Amino acid sequence: MPIITFISDFGDRDWFVAAVKGQILRANPEATVIDITHRIAPHDVRSAAFVVRSTYLDFPPATIHLVVVDPGVGSMRKPIIVQSEDYVFVGPDNGVFSYVLNEKSRVFGINSTGEVSTTFHARDIFAPTAGRLSRGEEPKNLGTTISDYVRFSFPGIQTTGKEVHGEIIYIDHFGNLITNIPISTAVTSVHIAKQQIAVKKCYAEVHQGDLIVVKGSAGFYEIAANMASAKSILGASTGMRIVAVAA
Amino acid sequence: MPIITFISDFGDRDWFVAAVKGQILRANPEATVIDITHRIAPHDVRSAAFVVRSTYLDFPPATIHLVVVDPGVGSMRKPIIVQSEDYVFVGPDNGVFSYVLNEKSRVFGINSTGEVSTTFHARDIFAPTAGRLSRGEEPKNLGTTISDYVRFSFPGIQTTGKEVHGEIIYIDHFGNLITNIPISTAVTSVHIAKQQIAVKKCYAEVHQGDLIVVKGSAGFYEIAANMASAKSILGASTGMRIVAVAA
Amino acid sequence: MPIITFISDFGDRDWFVAAVKGQILRANPEATVIDITHRIAPHDVRSAAFVVRSTYLDFPPATIHLVVVDPGVGSMRKPIIVQSEDYVFVGPDNGVFSYVLNEKSRVFGINSTGEVSTTFHARDIFAPTAGRLSRGEEPKNLGTTISDYVRFSFPGIQTTGKEVHGEIIYIDHFGNLITNIPISTAVTSVHIAKQQIAVKKCYAEVHQGDLIVVKGSAGFYEIAANMASAKSILGASTGMRIVAVAA
Repeated sequence: MPIITFISDFGDRDWFVAAVKGQILRANPEATVIDITHRIAPHDVRSAAFVVRSTYLDFPPATIHLVVVDPGVGSMRKPIIVQSEDYVFVGPDNGVFSYVLNEKSRVFGINSTGEVSTTFHARDIFAPTAGRLSRGEEPKNLGTTISDYVRFSFPGIQTTGKEVHGEIIYIDHFGNLITNIPISTAVTSVHIAKQQIAVKKCYAEVHQGDLIVVKGSAGFYEIAANMASAKSILGASTGMRIVAVAA
Repeated sequence: MPIITFISDFGDRDWFVAAVKGQILRANPEATVIDITHRIAPHDVRSAAFVVRSTYLDFPPATIHLVVVDPGVGSMRKPIIVQSEDYVFVGPDNGVFSYVLNEKSRVFGINSTGEVSTTFHARDIFAPTAGRLSRGEEPKNLGTTISDYVRFSFPGIQTTGKEVHGEIIYIDHFGNLITNIPISTAVTSVHIAKQQIAVKKCYAEVHQGDLIVVKGSAGFYEIAANMASAKSILGASTGMRIVAVAA
Repeated sequence: MPIITFISDFGDRDWFVAAVKGQILRANPEATVIDITHRIAPHDVRSAAFVVRSTYLDFPPATIHLVVVDPGVGSMRKPIIVQSEDYVFVGPDNGVFSYVLNEKSRVFGINSTGEVSTTFHARDIFAPTAGRLSRGEEPKNLGTTISDYVRFSFPGIQTTGKEVHGEIIYIDHFGNLITNIPISTAVTSVHIAKQQIAVKKCYAEVHQGDLIVVKGSAGFYEIAANMASAKSILGASTGMRIVAVAA
């Protein structure tokens, strides 16, 4: 049972996600497609890059991850396949795979065939490619190795004495603020919006509505609130600067 | 692996979509159900008709398309099966299949059996019917041929000299405005809301935020904006009149 | 084909639902996961309890129902398995299974193993448990029987002469108001917000925009409006008191 996951900014109101699934099933009727999310903000390549990085390892090895946030569709930007040790990724060459690429990754520009629209490569190129890969076809038979692909760097932290300077990189549905400070860095509290918030183990350790910092499931410290939205309480947005106190 | 797609106005907050899937799986545990969308505006039969028309061909032949936007549920409106050359459709007789019907289609009124609520025929009639069709049962064994079904016509264009008069028929998640002018009609620009917008190949051909007309993936010209919402820029809504300049 | 359904308050913007599905597929690649909804209001255990009660019987026997609305994640609240006659339920011990428990149910506290985060037990405990159950493992081999589990009671009705006093317990996507008066109780009308609304058979029996009471598909009377939202018309919210007139 080959698995293909699917991330996009297509939303859930139209038929675009389904058109892609239909074309995958045309290429491989045995494929199972698992939606990750289609509610990436329109054209927000960096959020999509963070989402695929945060969950691709949850899936069994050999899973194919299809990621289509593609404002350059129809232009000269290449459609690509990224082959890593255990997974394969398919999508546009615009940096969306920046956080899953490593020194062992190989990147292929897809040699597309057939009739192709200028606005819906997910349906016309990426879906058939993912379907063929899920049948066992080799990336090298579907494309040509390239080395000049787009890759942006992960926003880094700066450490000055006891201060760890970072930022909010993602805000989830609950209003939890995911920082870029990895949980492997020992910190005791985080300063944001004139508040000092202590690191604790779980939400229930503070009163309802109170703020807390926890070791988040994505591997970074998160600023949260017990049964409430830290985003609303703090008026936070992505890019907001924070300072943690090193342990 | 029989495939059943599913379109409705049930939204994604309640259990209604799942209840239908459960009943399909009770009728045929082998069926795979693919959601197209459940975010059709409540009771908007014409949007559902456009959505099913725009994507049913993306699926493998023999796919069963279940479409339930059904304000007349529980009244005298019939539940129907539409059998076309390559696909089968199931839903209420209210015009929702208007754009997929052709001269080769056969329409059957479903002979429903079992206990039936007055408000949830998707669960009680349409799901078991789709499940049985997906097991290979013939439409003619599940219903009776009818010829007095509801069908409305597709909104047409009018051509006057070099002017092609049309309208906005659908607005997608990105704010792209889908017109009713087919891309087989050669036009060079579109006039809407006191602006003249040129036809180009892809979004990236104009600056960010600028308007563009492209040949859309649904087979009609679309008014769009590069990395922005044409809907917001133009204050557009469905039904809005446009005039294209023939090439 | 083992079926696992999934209810949560995770929303549809992030990767949390997919991470759970990935871990289920790691435990059992044959499992089919069917989403019920992930749009339970954050932390609203009682709504989740009503949703699972309203649809679990639509699925084939042996279906595993995973329900994760879990503000106590990481605290001392237990992860549990509920084994009933035909179904198995997996989730936190916070009352979310109150309306599906009966005298034949057995409840097991899960003996979790492996690495476990403090904020994402759906991924780290519940998904692997559901996956193992779907492979045929016995609840008693995955946990230990407990009897001190959390259970809250269903909001009851009070009958005084011809008056049946109840409340609004759930409002759906269409704005239909689901009451706690079972359709097995014969009533002729419902009083709410200074209006007396008659029980009728189907929406189409009243004019567009007019209010109606119908026998709802969840087994309770519902206050609705033909092609409109009763919630908007009446300014209703859950917990609002109603009085029905007994037949």
